[in-house]
Amino acid sequence: MPVRLSGATYIMEKPPCIYSFASVGGKDEGEGPLGNNFDKINDDPYMTSKTYEQGESQLQKQSVRIALEKAHLKPENIDFMFGGDLLNQCIGTTFGIKDYEIPFLGIYGACSTMAEGLLLSGLLCDSGVGKKIVAVTSSHFCSAERQYRFPLEYGGQRTPTAQHTATASGAVVVSSEGTAPFIRAVTIGRIVDMGITDANNMGAAMAPAAFDVITRFLKDTQKAPGFFDYIVTGDLGKVGSELLCSLMEKEKISIGSVHKDCGIMLYDIEKQDMHAGGSGCGCSGGVLCGYFLPKLKSGEIKNILFVATGALMSPTINQQGETIPSIAHAVWISAE
Amino acid sequence: MPVRLSGATYIMEKPPCIYSFASVGGKDEGEGPLGNNFDKINDDPYMTSKTYEQGESQLQKQSVRIALEKAHLKPENIDFMFGGDLLNQCIGTTFGIKDYEIPFLGIYGACSTMAEGLLLSGLLCDSGVGKKIVAVTSSHFCSAERQYRFPLEYGGQRTPTAQHTATASGAVVVSSEGTAPFIRAVTIGRIVDMGITDANNMGAAMAPAAFDVITRFLKDTQKAPGFFDYIVTGDLGKVGSELLCSLMEKEKISIGSVHKDCGIMLYDIEKQDMHAGGSGCGCSGGVLCGYFLPKLKSGEIKNILFVATGALMSPTINQQGETIPSIAHAVWISAE
Repeated sequence: MPVRLSGATYIMEKPPCIYSFASVGGKDEGEGPLGNNFDKINDDPYMTSKTYEQGESQLQKQSVRIALEKAHLKPENIDFMFGGDLLNQCIGTTFGIKDYEIPFLGIYGACSTMAEGLLLSGLLCDSGVGKKIVAVTSSHFCSAERQYRFPLEYGGQRTPTAQHTATASGAVVVSSEGTAPFIRAVTIGRIVDMGITDANNMGAAMAPAAFDVITRFLKDTQKAPGFFDYIVTGDLGKVGSELLCSLMEKEKISIGSVHKDCGIMLYDIEKQDMHAGGSGCGCSGGVLCGYFLPKLKSGEIKNILFVATGALMSPTINQQGETIPSIAHAVWISAE
Repeated sequence: MPVRLSGATYIMEKPPCIYSFASVGGKDEGEGPLGNNFDKINDDPYMTSKTYEQGESQLQKQSVRIALEKAHLKPENIDFMFGGDLLNQCIGTTFGIKDYEIPFLGIYGACSTMAEGLLLSGLLCDSGVGKKIVAVTSSHFCSAERQYRFPLEYGGQRTPTAQHTATASGAVVVSSEGTAPFIRAVTIGRIVDMGITDANNMGAAMAPAAFDVITRFLKDTQKAPGFFDYIVTGDLGKVGSELLCSLMEKEKISIGSVHKDCGIMLYDIEKQDMHAGGSGCGCSGGVLCGYFLPKLKSGEIKNILFVATGALMSPTINQQGETIPSIAHAVWISAE
């Protein structure tokens, strides 16, 4: 049973393992520096479907299928699953996973979804409720653009602080029994709102939420940043990452030497013209499952603190002049 | 620790209690047959805010505040909370609860959200992870109409099978210690898709999901429908309720004498011109917290099976011709 520390941090008693994992991506992700890390790259943005939204569903269908196949598991071996995405009413997830007929609990945390799913799966495995739980998420550049910004056909100019929604999905099977990597501890995030209203600068909106959860995790667990090979944020991009590091510096906590951001790692930002970097649920999901989990499994790295960040905004309320509240959850994943 | 039965049903070992609860509604809900059951009625659809969306947030802020006040709890006494709603990116929840600064886990299950929140809170309390967990949800007629159908100003004619989204919110505090009502067991739902495509007939789309989870619950727990004072569906309305009862009859399970539907109960359907009845996350949330939980607390009724149902549709994918997959979760709540 997980042990609760003061700041909504839970230490696992018998750390659940990440039994299997898979990542899939789109064309831009395949052409980026992590292209070879994905289990599957889809060059067609429709993934043979008729619409971008249905294409995004294919990403989740693929990542869950591959994660199950790698572990020789069938859908009926899974107790239940958590899933969510950025699309209105999370339909990327609904249509992606419905045919598996696995008992399902929908989650919404914007781009923090991968961390929320891992966190809940970890807590429920360590407490004995579940033996095998799946967590999945996705995002798609084309479906996100037309929902959050403009139709692609409009050809709008993007600001330098804007981020590029990744076309990707990550899926994990969390298990009460198995080998590394292990989920050692989690911190549940709080909604943080520093008053940012620019929907083209979500890194700045999300950095304070990452700061809040990382500082609470480090304080609760009495760990120094250097304990971790990497402190991995989801998709702060260049702007948000700089802001996070400077917020930490003000508290005299230096994370610069171990900080990595999935949004910066996913693309060759200059060459691929990705402005401030990647974003989207699939960004942190894909990079975690494609890059970090294999290194933890092989023992090449020992510990990461995975902090996916989400901007809890909607175009409707943004147009009404409201701020962009954000949230981030922290998950300590270890090779030991 | 909850004990898992075959069909994703969990029996609580030490049943957590619903320590406190609150329901708030709008003008139509106040004028309906349950008007006196709400803790607070808001006659102003804006709830003193500038927009309907911000108004919906006020509903959640109110219901959480009242639920905490009734139990003499402060936000810092809550371990974490689950919340979600129907609005794109669940912003009703985000802006409603952010000022409480309670560690937050967003969920999305359309109108099944109250059952999903109760279910997760129950599992996590019984397994010792949380001592006090809040679950909240809401819906708002005006914000839902313009998002899912037409702007109110358009004055569109509604079909007889259409349902009226309730302006309401329900909030509960689930606790590992306390007095009745208790959460005795839960069944996690699966996504069910019977091919319905009419967004003005969501009762029909959701009935098969309710059927799936109710039959699994009854089979797993070896209970007959007559064991329950009421089997309470969320918002099937008149059309979906008839369909559910006839689906059950085909399996030779008669629930007609104990079946109640929150969407039918909330309004005087003929007099208030509510077509097929009420719907929305706040419909089942408000009726559970305003009508059923007080009766369970007083011992007037002994057992209910609460089955909130959700249509996992979005206007985007509905316009693309896709079906309306649905989900329902079951929660057995008892006075003993």
